[in-house]
Amino acid sequence: MRSLFHEELETLSDELVELSRLSARALERATRALLGADLELAEQVISEDEQIDALRRDLDNRAIDAIARQQPVATDLRQLVTTLRMSADLERCGDLARHVAKLARLRYPVCAVSGELTDVFAQMSEHAQAMCLRSGEIVSAQDASGAAELQQQDDTMDRLHREVFRILLEPEWDGGTQAAIDATLLSRYYERFADHAVSVAIRVVYLVTGVWMDEQEAASRDHLGGGGVPRAGI
Amino acid sequence: MRSLFHEELETLSDELVELSRLSARALERATRALLGADLELAEQVISEDEQIDALRRDLDNRAIDAIARQQPVATDLRQLVTTLRMSADLERCGDLARHVAKLARLRYPVCAVSGELTDVFAQMSEHAQAMCLRSGEIVSAQDASGAAELQQQDDTMDRLHREVFRILLEPEWDGGTQAAIDATLLSRYYERFADHAVSVAIRVVYLVTGVWMDEQEAASRDHLGGGGVPRAGI
Repeated sequence: MRSLFHEELETLSDELVELSRLSARALERATRALLGADLELAEQVISEDEQIDALRRDLDNRAIDAIARQQPVATDLRQLVTTLRMSADLERCGDLARHVAKLARLRYPVCAVSGELTDVFAQMSEHAQAMCLRSGEIVSAQDASGAAELQQQDDTMDRLHREVFRILLEPEWDGGTQAAIDATLLSRYYERFADHAVSVAIRVVYLVTGVWMDEQEAASRDHLGGGGVPRAGI
Repeated sequence: MRSLFHEELETLSDELVELSRLSARALERATRALLGADLELAEQVISEDEQIDALRRDLDNRAIDAIARQQPVATDLRQLVTTLRMSADLERCGDLARHVAKLARLRYPVCAVSGELTDVFAQMSEHAQAMCLRSGEIVSAQDASGAAELQQQDDTMDRLHREVFRILLEPEWDGGTQAAIDATLLSRYYERFADHAVSVAIRVVYLVTGVWMDEQEAASRDHLGGGGVPRAGI
């Protein structure tokens, strides 16, 4: 029975990895749709989000069934509960990729992002994808040490997030208010995507070590003092 | 044993209601800090978020312990798993209130919001608080019919969200890019706060009826086609 149970846990872990791959892929495609004003690709990303949602539902049902059938306690139970939380994080990454695609669709045939911002969003997308894929590897390997690395990568995301605001607030900015609104929302989507990847990794640390790694610090990443709005313009 | 278990469920339900109250209160105070440029109040909201986080941790630990000790199946298990999801929603509401307070603090002594926007954000805050409190009542009464009402209220939030963008995009808008960025982020925080309240209510529908009420519709509320970015400016 134990052995079957641990096989089940492994299947769930594989599905989390698959979720991380699908969400990273969705962000890659959404960003391509955004920066290339590609309506067809945007539509694909939007409709394919249902696959991510379905995989997450399947994963959650399996995890809940495992709790009901195996009645695990202690570490095994925590692992299943944590799986439910990680699936929520990774599914939310997919939603955020869909948001990027929806903005691309909304502005088509105009490109929502232009000028200096193009390169910043390309970098945000690459970093966020890499972080999401890495979070899957960390889950798969139960690699508690990987979380610190992911938090460092999140500092890069924060820097890029601030860079977006720096560009918008330059006296030379002539993109207008609509483009500033779009860039603000987009930057927030990419930043939150990365936050969820960090969150997955921190949950692995908890599972492996039983200690919350800087939970407070992680929560404070989604704030306005550091990565949020720049102090310029006060 | 069953009776003790159901007492435990009731305690958890009470704690969810308390979470909804604390988060609604945090938003009320954060909005007062925002609209009145009240630094002291903003600091209070930011530091008091820890209470919400602590209550959520306590609630989650109780729910997980109940699963371990009582080994529930079927409906009882779903109820406990759903409790964990609702606590995550309500704690996130508290985070979003903290974000509003952080923006107030960041811009102090300047008021981040002015002119026509003041009234819109006051309305967004009132609606979002009412929705959060109502979600607690819906949990407490296991009132599946309340969710439809909450979704209607969310339409008002979407309208106010669009109103923010309409104001920012008026030719008369002279608040500058920084204020436009701030208003965009704030509007998103209030909108997401309300989304989480709707999400709590939808989970109650599922618990009571076993059927997901327009899960897709709820997911699509957090989108760009309806409540998100206005089409103006294309």
